[in-house]
Amino acid sequence: MYSFEEIAQIIKKNDFFYILTHVYPDGDALGSAFALCRALQKLGKHSNVMLCSPIPEKFGYLKEYVNIQNFEPEFIISVDLADAKLLEPAFENYKEKIDICIDHHLSNKKYAKINYVENAAANCEIIYKLIKELNAEIDREIACALYSGIATDTGCFEYSNTTASSHLIAAELINLGAQVAEINERLFTIKTIKKLETEKIIYSNMKYFFGGKCAITSISLQEMQKIGISDGELDGMASIPIKVEGAEIGITIREKSFGVNKISVRTRKNVDANKFCECFGGGGHSKAAGFNLVGSIQEAENAILDVLKSQFGW
Amino acid sequence: MYSFEEIAQIIKKNDFFYILTHVYPDGDALGSAFALCRALQKLGKHSNVMLCSPIPEKFGYLKEYVNIQNFEPEFIISVDLADAKLLEPAFENYKEKIDICIDHHLSNKKYAKINYVENAAANCEIIYKLIKELNAEIDREIACALYSGIATDTGCFEYSNTTASSHLIAAELINLGAQVAEINERLFTIKTIKKLETEKIIYSNMKYFFGGKCAITSISLQEMQKIGISDGELDGMASIPIKVEGAEIGITIREKSFGVNKISVRTRKNVDANKFCECFGGGGHSKAAGFNLVGSIQEAENAILDVLKSQFGW
Repeated sequence: MYSFEEIAQIIKKNDFFYILTHVYPDGDALGSAFALCRALQKLGKHSNVMLCSPIPEKFGYLKEYVNIQNFEPEFIISVDLADAKLLEPAFENYKEKIDICIDHHLSNKKYAKINYVENAAANCEIIYKLIKELNAEIDREIACALYSGIATDTGCFEYSNTTASSHLIAAELINLGAQVAEINERLFTIKTIKKLETEKIIYSNMKYFFGGKCAITSISLQEMQKIGISDGELDGMASIPIKVEGAEIGITIREKSFGVNKISVRTRKNVDANKFCECFGGGGHSKAAGFNLVGSIQEAENAILDVLKSQFGW
Repeated sequence: MYSFEEIAQIIKKNDFFYILTHVYPDGDALGSAFALCRALQKLGKHSNVMLCSPIPEKFGYLKEYVNIQNFEPEFIISVDLADAKLLEPAFENYKEKIDICIDHHLSNKKYAKINYVENAAANCEIIYKLIKELNAEIDREIACALYSGIATDTGCFEYSNTTASSHLIAAELINLGAQVAEINERLFTIKTIKKLETEKIIYSNMKYFFGGKCAITSISLQEMQKIGISDGELDGMASIPIKVEGAEIGITIREKSFGVNKISVRTRKNVDANKFCECFGGGGHSKAAGFNLVGSIQEAENAILDVLKSQFGW
């Protein structure tokens, strides 16, 4: 086990870095990668962020924070990457070559030569401490990148993973120039018309059962095609039904292809989402899980209600 | 001008406090009042929160933090109260009798014998410092009350008024036991079915004009009656149209009574909401303003579009 200080020393002694993170990168993955890359460049080192899938448009500003440099890597760092499998297929060849992994997922697979895993709401909280340990200046751009990650993974400090440390680092980043008003507007306030139209359908299709303890909504292929939204853009929608007051289980049925539905389950209180999904051959965590179900949306709904009655006694 | 320390000294020398705040109290008004009341009670003083309108159900937990005591007041403190008029009509008789006002609105009317006004995202940030200055212990309940106020007025740290100080105090309150996960869920995550149904209508009635620069939505009396929601419960809805990507002006038309509409205007970038509303005899601030308009919802929409064309050259 290497200490945090030793890891910083190892990084300091090297040059020609590639920084990798997971596919479909979110704000915490991108914030971690671009903040660390800029810090290394500021220390006079060669450093590139290598992404295995495109950067979502709303995080496009992060690209401006680093210079693109051409070189062969001598040292590879992964950030916010719990499992090297999440580099597939584009960067499969790097899977065995990662020197240091810096991650906040306790489920991390320890795939790198050196693995530093710490429990934190956002990986950017660890990267913030690492950059300080490297004695690199946290300028406005690094502060913006780190704030983007912390705000993303804490749902702008609303989620239950938010800690005093998340707030303390946010305060420090604001003092260092992070433009939090602009970032918050971009990440949280502004909605695309597609997203708004999707939410309208999710709201319109909402149904309540068992005196409101269960809220179920759905979106059909036809509805998605009409809006022009793809399945990959629907991730936030799964959290809507469980927000309804009184709901203990919130279920979103998305028609993935004709006659095949992806069911996302979110729960509150004592309802075990994993146990529920196991009844259908799926699984996940206690508060968030899922499964696939063949049939029409109405058939999926009927099957879900049957299990809630027979297995859960509702 | 009294210093903050002098104000704390004056409070310490007194007993038998009434704490007042504005009508239709929000989380910051209530958090300020209940936190200060509990702190004074912990210092062995007599203290009551006196509210001139009912406490909204979602803030009901704050009531548990203080003991109700029967006494005549000798010293009156107002919190988060920019203007003594905001005590009308229930507490009109207290308007001239307020000893100390603690407020974060720079527009404060300085109606008390001693007025302490400081620019802060939330009044609870000032109350936090006051309680420390009073040497009262900030226990779990006071921490919860103060966090409720800061989270309310910063929109859970999303609004542009959020400062490093808001985050620093939030971190401190978490360390002192504030149950932020429970409070955030209650204040921000959970939606009543009525609110969800209202949002559905606001989304369904959304129209876009001038290439998306203008988003207009509406809700009719009939739609409100069907949901069973009153005009007073619609306040958050006015911020929805301006959230749409590309919108520079977002307008919400609510039918207040048959043939009378309340128009709420929110703007972004260089559009002056106040100037726009003045064309209709209304007004407000540069980014948020409003006016009333007689006629049907469709007539109101037509009149709005006409002014955007003729006066704004859209």
